[in-house]
Amino acid sequence: MATLRSLYSSDHADRPEFNTNFNTVAPYQAIILTIRSVDYVVHYQIPPEEATQAEASFVQLVEALTGVGLATEVRRGDDSSLLIFVKIASEDLLKQQIYRYRVQDWLYGVRTSAPNKDLSSYFEDEPVIEAEKLRLVYLLITKPRNEGGAGVTPKTGQWKYVKSVFPLHNHTFNRHLIKQLSTKYFIEESDINDIRDKFGEKIAFYFAFMQAYFSFLVFPAAFGFGAWLILGQFSWFYAIVNCLWSVVFFEYWKKKEVDLAVQWGVRGVSRIQHPRTQFQFEREAQDPVTGEIVKVYPPLKRLQRQLLQLPFAIICLLVLGSLIITCFSIEIFISEVYNGPFKQYLVFLPTVLLTVFMPALTTILTNLAEKLTVLENYETQDSHQAAFVQKMFVINFITSYLPIILTAFVYVPFGKVLVPYLDVFHVTAQHFTKDGKIAIQPFEVNPDRLKKQIIYFTVTAQVVNFLLESVVPIIKRRVFKAVKEAQTDMTHKNVQPQHKDHEEEAAFLQRVRNEAELDEYDVTVDYREMVVQFGYLSLFSVIWPLTGCSFLVNNWIEARSDAMKIAINSQRPIPWRADSIGPWLTSLGFLSWLGSLTSAAIVFMFNRDPYGPDGLPANIKGWALLLSILFAEHIYLLIQIVVRYVIGNMDSPGLQKERAERFAMRKLHLQETLGESLAESAAGANFTGPEKITREALEEEARRASISGSKQEAPEQLFWQRQRGAAETIQIGRGYMSEAVAAAAANKTKAQ
Amino acid sequence: MATLRSLYSSDHADRPEFNTNFNTVAPYQAIILTIRSVDYVVHYQIPPEEATQAEASFVQLVEALTGVGLATEVRRGDDSSLLIFVKIASEDLLKQQIYRYRVQDWLYGVRTSAPNKDLSSYFEDEPVIEAEKLRLVYLLITKPRNEGGAGVTPKTGQWKYVKSVFPLHNHTFNRHLIKQLSTKYFIEESDINDIRDKFGEKIAFYFAFMQAYFSFLVFPAAFGFGAWLILGQFSWFYAIVNCLWSVVFFEYWKKKEVDLAVQWGVRGVSRIQHPRTQFQFEREAQDPVTGEIVKVYPPLKRLQRQLLQLPFAIICLLVLGSLIITCFSIEIFISEVYNGPFKQYLVFLPTVLLTVFMPALTTILTNLAEKLTVLENYETQDSHQAAFVQKMFVINFITSYLPIILTAFVYVPFGKVLVPYLDVFHVTAQHFTKDGKIAIQPFEVNPDRLKKQIIYFTVTAQVVNFLLESVVPIIKRRVFKAVKEAQTDMTHKNVQPQHKDHEEEAAFLQRVRNEAELDEYDVTVDYREMVVQFGYLSLFSVIWPLTGCSFLVNNWIEARSDAMKIAINSQRPIPWRADSIGPWLTSLGFLSWLGSLTSAAIVFMFNRDPYGPDGLPANIKGWALLLSILFAEHIYLLIQIVVRYVIGNMDSPGLQKERAERFAMRKLHLQETLGESLAESAAGANFTGPEKITREALEEEARRASISGSKQEAPEQLFWQRQRGAAETIQIGRGYMSEAVAAAAANKTKAQ
Repeated sequence: MATLRSLYSSDHADRPEFNTNFNTVAPYQAIILTIRSVDYVVHYQIPPEEATQAEASFVQLVEALTGVGLATEVRRGDDSSLLIFVKIASEDLLKQQIYRYRVQDWLYGVRTSAPNKDLSSYFEDEPVIEAEKLRLVYLLITKPRNEGGAGVTPKTGQWKYVKSVFPLHNHTFNRHLIKQLSTKYFIEESDINDIRDKFGEKIAFYFAFMQAYFSFLVFPAAFGFGAWLILGQFSWFYAIVNCLWSVVFFEYWKKKEVDLAVQWGVRGVSRIQHPRTQFQFEREAQDPVTGEIVKVYPPLKRLQRQLLQLPFAIICLLVLGSLIITCFSIEIFISEVYNGPFKQYLVFLPTVLLTVFMPALTTILTNLAEKLTVLENYETQDSHQAAFVQKMFVINFITSYLPIILTAFVYVPFGKVLVPYLDVFHVTAQHFTKDGKIAIQPFEVNPDRLKKQIIYFTVTAQVVNFLLESVVPIIKRRVFKAVKEAQTDMTHKNVQPQHKDHEEEAAFLQRVRNEAELDEYDVTVDYREMVVQFGYLSLFSVIWPLTGCSFLVNNWIEARSDAMKIAINSQRPIPWRADSIGPWLTSLGFLSWLGSLTSAAIVFMFNRDPYGPDGLPANIKGWALLLSILFAEHIYLLIQIVVRYVIGNMDSPGLQKERAERFAMRKLHLQETLGESLAESAAGANFTGPEKITREALEEEARRASISGSKQEAPEQLFWQRQRGAAETIQIGRGYMSEAVAAAAANKTKAQ
Repeated sequence: MATLRSLYSSDHADRPEFNTNFNTVAPYQAIILTIRSVDYVVHYQIPPEEATQAEASFVQLVEALTGVGLATEVRRGDDSSLLIFVKIASEDLLKQQIYRYRVQDWLYGVRTSAPNKDLSSYFEDEPVIEAEKLRLVYLLITKPRNEGGAGVTPKTGQWKYVKSVFPLHNHTFNRHLIKQLSTKYFIEESDINDIRDKFGEKIAFYFAFMQAYFSFLVFPAAFGFGAWLILGQFSWFYAIVNCLWSVVFFEYWKKKEVDLAVQWGVRGVSRIQHPRTQFQFEREAQDPVTGEIVKVYPPLKRLQRQLLQLPFAIICLLVLGSLIITCFSIEIFISEVYNGPFKQYLVFLPTVLLTVFMPALTTILTNLAEKLTVLENYETQDSHQAAFVQKMFVINFITSYLPIILTAFVYVPFGKVLVPYLDVFHVTAQHFTKDGKIAIQPFEVNPDRLKKQIIYFTVTAQVVNFLLESVVPIIKRRVFKAVKEAQTDMTHKNVQPQHKDHEEEAAFLQRVRNEAELDEYDVTVDYREMVVQFGYLSLFSVIWPLTGCSFLVNNWIEARSDAMKIAINSQRPIPWRADSIGPWLTSLGFLSWLGSLTSAAIVFMFNRDPYGPDGLPANIKGWALLLSILFAEHIYLLIQIVVRYVIGNMDSPGLQKERAERFAMRKLHLQETLGESLAESAAGANFTGPEKITREALEEEARRASISGSKQEAPEQLFWQRQRGAAETIQIGRGYMSEAVAAAAANKTKAQ
């Protein structure tokens, strides 16, 4: 059996089943090549107890698919499923589809120029890339019938037996990509362009973001290392540099993002929205502009429902907050107050509690967030996704940062005041001991706790997360597979299958069956991880300046493991387009801004000479703390304006490309409207070529005026006829002038 | 003599010289009408001592003007000037020019659709409005020769004798406009559209802003009156409502502005920049994109010079600040400490000092700001203007708000501490008295001072300003005129003029001579006034809630007096386009934001129950003050996000128009590219019509495949040939399914 793990080891590299998606033609016919391969595989489930419905639905499925011009082949999947292979049936259809979507892009302003009407030469000039083709075929499969698609939406309604619709991995490329990434320090533009060609812009944007973030991390890593050596903790200088860095990074990325979108020809693509099929409309109305029937959901009603986000955030804060506070208190009590028996085991109690309850609560709240987002009833997939991400950010913010905020702003300054209240644990614990007495030690605020916590979140948690993300799924899948195979073996012992795979296809089908079992890849999970990480750097790295170093190492691995995840642990993603990292941009900006506040507060509270007798900050003046926060925040905002202005004034390849395209477009249109020679001078910003009609026109005009003047001698006509042509005007003007000079001279003599 | 004041009194309304700009043709020929009138008047100065140069330059001027297709007539101005009347010579030239600029607009994305190529029908569909024509003729006169203009730039270089180039007022319209405005409470959309047609979008935007601001003012006026009756001063409720109002107004205007720009067809017009003739380039370089030679000034160098704004702001603060503080201290000393002789006269001393020094200092600083802006060396007029406005805003901010800020945040809280230092005046004053002794009274902080100051700035100063702005220029002009006429009479007594005006033109020429003497209208002055006023409302109205009422009354008059100012006291402005109120928008946003801080601080400091024994705020806790400011600011920012979101989701006529245009454009292009029937369904967002090529194509494809298959039987080809057509796929799929079901059943029986 070909396990997927073994796929990329070199001894399997020459196995043909990984090198083909059943393209039938030699590669020199590029356009032909793209249409003969397997485009998508529909994984079709047959529950034995619903065999009749499943069969009826299967017939409809194949008819729907062939009805929109797709070719189908069916093969056996595992015991209770079929694999339906789909490819676009004709080259003409593909060309037509692609041409149409490109025209649409142009109409929406995504492309600068309209596609050429001469199809054959057009596709030679602008060939079809793999991602584009796969996207269009997917749309053809899933779009509603009234919009010209087959209307196949996996797992819903009529198509509930369709488990998934996925494209097949291009393993030659995957192997090449992973080899490329693993052998260099920095991901290069060309790698990202490759990713874009195969997996679409949405995923390419993630890798481009990773690349930019990783490159930028070099600075805080180096500077942080220096600061750690020289400045120590809680340095205001480090805090300022760190804030400045986060502003520069944020503004840089905002520009870079636009730039990439322009380079990839997807700028403004978010305007072309994919409608959400689950959208519930309240009434249908005629659009006053277009006369079309549009589905309307009152925005005010949506706004009301969006306001539910406020109670949602409060609930999250209460639920997760109380769990965190409880565990935190128990931990402090056990590690710093309690001194009785089993202390060495009891210290793990909070960790156990957190590990058990946190995922459960997070899952519940995530479900709630999903329900809330569905309730808000968005019309498009993008806005739905953005609203969900926003809610998830609240949950992530609390789980990731609340513990540190508690330590920094509650435990350290108010520890002495609050810890006596932890006696409640003391009392509880006494119930469980025989003599009703528990040894306790006097409480001291532990100033190292903050640093330890940061190290935990920025090193330990990152490693754990990496393992959970990349190693655990592989183990999980292996175990499941082993179980399943055992079952299949048992079954096959009894009933011999009538059909065996065709010998020459067997290996290929085996590979497809494996891919069918994989999970879908969700890029938001990876974005979330990076944004949360950026938050640690921006909010708290002043506590432990080595944070940047840790993240630098982590992210090198992360980028590679994410590529591996896509290539090996997931089905090939649908290559969607995007023109930005979307809602995460707002989160980044928010964290960068919040960093200015927390850094200022932490530096002010912890970086003080007059330490108390216990080595802790003492004597903190409220007004001074608030003033420093206020000050830091406004300096931050000011710096942001300056940095934005400076970065906004820089040129970039994307902007150059856009300018070049616009210039070419202008020149072309001007040639069409104004003729060759003028267009040359006019394509620039200012064009008002001198006219040939000047004096002749003037005389003609005067002649015409005198003709009409003979009919009626109005003063208006006389006015313009007094001086005919420039010569007369000059002559008369000169007369006036000499007159004025003479008068002035006479006046002067008189005065003397 | 026809004074301009008498122009609009009804007994003069029928005088023909005000009803004509020498249009020669009957109004039914609309396009002809627009080209026969006097478009511009060039006011040409002849200094007697430089008569020869002036004459040479005059010849060049007339030749340059006729060279670009303009007709000229010359007449005598006053004793030492000529009036050169200019109109565009031929209808064709005008049409060509307008067509070209409209094509340019389309290329820059200002117009949605390209102008129709059939000129005659095109100009019937989209007629030329007066403002458009005047703008183009002005560009024709002033553009550099290499860009096809006459290159006449008033008052500079070769053209230093050209005193001004101005269009003639359309007095029929002006009279109509003022009558319209004076008889209604609110300026209507139609009035603003009229203003736009005659004076261009830049000035129309000012009136639209005035209208919006005035309408919005009704709320704070009414609410403020209620608050004044019920809540009194320093009410936190008033402060919150006021902040909310300012956010809503700001966000509303931002949207309204875009909307108006779309309705007027000028959205994005700021992208078409007018180059600044004074721009100094450092080197010429070839644009990598267009291959054109472009003039380059290194942006980093500009940035360095822009950084000079910081010392400039500090200098302004020091210079104006020390003047204000000095006067403020003297005033306090005299009115509240001093009790000696001449007190009744001495109280006016600070006012006198301010009146003398403030305008002088402001003028010096304004000159400095202008020099600084020139030093920054912008490439376009817009960016130059914006940079200058920014610097002026700093000066205005200090002169307008610093006195109140001093009272609220220095005098009241720290008065008792600081006043003893005013003894320096005491000592000084003692020198001037005989006995060396001056009666003083014990100092008490005067809590009413703040309110009095606000009333001064929001009522008295507004009235004074109105008088300065609208009455003084008229008096000034009358006096100048009287002096000049006296001089002319003296001259004419001696030298009889050889030329008299033609009888039928005399009245018209007199009118033009009057207009030539008027000032140019500068809309920024009026904007500044409104923005500063908005600042008082946003920053300090919590001190005196009647502020809104005062402004409401003031602005009704202001709007009318501004219209009068344009119509009577100024030359007709060049009808420039604009798509926004420009740099003032930033200032509005800044003031609105700052309002949240000052209001919170004022309310916190002054609205407290535990007043001190002297009726003054006592016992102010620094941290609580800062916390309330911090809190208010962030609530403000949060509200801003919500309001922006809500307003952003609203539909508006401009957006509808844009959508309609885009829809029409899409439909048209799709008809051209895809054919009639498809375009119908495709003009919406989602179009992928079902293809005709389906099963037939599939079979054809299969046939072709089998032909090529006969040459080489690769497994890839075999794969797609196993099932030919949907029917076979369905049949085989059914087979697999029944097999799977049978296997499952057999397995089940086995297990039982």
